[in-house]
Amino acid sequence: MLDRNMEKLLKQYFDGDRRALARIISIIENGENNVARLMDKVYYRTGNAYRIGITGPPGAGKSTLVDQLTKIFRQEKKSVGIIAVDPTSPFTGGALLGDRIRMNDLTTDPGVFIRSMATRGSLGGLAHGIQEIADLLDAFGFEIVIFETVGVGQSELDIVEAADATVVVLVPESGDSIQAMKAGLMEIADIFVINKSDRDGADRTMMEIEYVLEFKEKPGAWKPPIIQTVANIGAGINFLNKSLSEFYDFQNKNHSRLKKQKKRINKYVRQLVKDKLLNDFWQPEQEEKLVEKVELILQKKHSPYAVSEKIIKDFRESQ
Amino acid sequence: MLDRNMEKLLKQYFDGDRRALARIISIIENGENNVARLMDKVYYRTGNAYRIGITGPPGAGKSTLVDQLTKIFRQEKKSVGIIAVDPTSPFTGGALLGDRIRMNDLTTDPGVFIRSMATRGSLGGLAHGIQEIADLLDAFGFEIVIFETVGVGQSELDIVEAADATVVVLVPESGDSIQAMKAGLMEIADIFVINKSDRDGADRTMMEIEYVLEFKEKPGAWKPPIIQTVANIGAGINFLNKSLSEFYDFQNKNHSRLKKQKKRINKYVRQLVKDKLLNDFWQPEQEEKLVEKVELILQKKHSPYAVSEKIIKDFRESQ
Repeated sequence: MLDRNMEKLLKQYFDGDRRALARIISIIENGENNVARLMDKVYYRTGNAYRIGITGPPGAGKSTLVDQLTKIFRQEKKSVGIIAVDPTSPFTGGALLGDRIRMNDLTTDPGVFIRSMATRGSLGGLAHGIQEIADLLDAFGFEIVIFETVGVGQSELDIVEAADATVVVLVPESGDSIQAMKAGLMEIADIFVINKSDRDGADRTMMEIEYVLEFKEKPGAWKPPIIQTVANIGAGINFLNKSLSEFYDFQNKNHSRLKKQKKRINKYVRQLVKDKLLNDFWQPEQEEKLVEKVELILQKKHSPYAVSEKIIKDFRESQ
Repeated sequence: MLDRNMEKLLKQYFDGDRRALARIISIIENGENNVARLMDKVYYRTGNAYRIGITGPPGAGKSTLVDQLTKIFRQEKKSVGIIAVDPTSPFTGGALLGDRIRMNDLTTDPGVFIRSMATRGSLGGLAHGIQEIADLLDAFGFEIVIFETVGVGQSELDIVEAADATVVVLVPESGDSIQAMKAGLMEIADIFVINKSDRDGADRTMMEIEYVLEFKEKPGAWKPPIIQTVANIGAGINFLNKSLSEFYDFQNKNHSRLKKQKKRINKYVRQLVKDKLLNDFWQPEQEEKLVEKVELILQKKHSPYAVSEKIIKDFRESQ
């Protein structure tokens, strides 16, 4: 059961109130309790948005690219919801890259909704929140949902799972750390963008990617296009838009979109099950017990393994 | 209960057989079933090793630094176990950075044990395995346990939790991506190393770090030293060794080592509880049920939330 305030908020959301949308997103970000019940109502309206993930190393110009791409979508009268994910320092809780400056004409456009999200602590948490916020934007009626994230570590994986299409943005002078990431990036990209292609090395980077892709080519499979852009002057963005729509058609034709959706739902249910099992287990009483047991473990009176087995057994017997 | 082969293996391990140690590590890496029961026996012998985490960006020379540091420990007759963690591409399963070449005189020294580990999929998995392997090395009798990992994303956090002391290795020409990471690195470092300090910019980097550290200074707290090294010629490594032993004494004096151990145990029990709860839940029968339910969710007949609640309820009633 949702409480009255939530019922009201949800009604406003279903009526198309953007402030209600923003508030519900905050509720999800804060991980409040009734999220599952709230999302339960929202879920049935989802499934229409084209979910696009944009990832790449810091400084590749992803925000500018997203802004320019959004402009083109708006020219086509498509509404766009953007989720920009900033990796945080889990120690300070602050975003690493800080707030970015977005184009003014986007932030005042009622057909565009932009939300910055910081990843908090656990990476499972990131995926969880992202999935729900994407569902919220989808059910609200946005035809395009864009995830934008720095491709470091796990976050790019979460994007791949949450998105229908993944765009990997690189720059011509990709350094050591990107080199090291490339193996991973190669696997996740449905479309490659080499942004800042007016700089030296764009063609070389393109050839390098093509070289790696050749080994992966399979008959009937999608061959990721490589698009050169100069996002800050808007060059090449129309090609990206075209590739995105070709990929959408391709996925629908060979049912890979459906397969991806199934995988996403499967993983999502698992996440919800995990959250509930752990939440039910770690009640204050159990937390207190753990603190006591840690002392005994430290004194070598029990082992962590013995304690974990015991507290689960006791918990089950008390139910 | 452990089976006979495991009992035998464990006996060999307790007798100081390095091949048995290596085999048990493989068992843990492969996530085989009886790990918890195995570790249960090992746990009571742990607690003596000084656990040192070494992290930093790719190309900072961490392996060389670890090798040189190990040489000094060996001169002091301390035995050293090294766990080198390579981030993998979760898509290919392969290590990103590949095998590194270690010094010959270390690999043939019976007082040194080196193990390379690839992170697999989930990051919880990394921490889990690492903690257990560190315990194994500790209980085997290694006086120093070194974790070496590329500091990207979550892996450096896992190291901080697993280690008594965390050394962050930077290089003078730290670029954009390191700049972005710095906020996080600042929080985790007990000791800073600027490796390759014969290159331009070492003093500038040192001043930058000092500048940030000044804002963090608290009376009575440890002030992370910043050490310049040129690891490939062994320069500065003795200063690192000295700082590590000063930090060890400092931690013991103000009980922060104990506090760290408690936190580590607490987190570890939670991980074991989570693993058991999920493992008990996701039996083949439940997996099959999930596949069916995903179809119904896709057809919008149920929501993911409703399904997760239902399968947990059914599971509990069937127990």
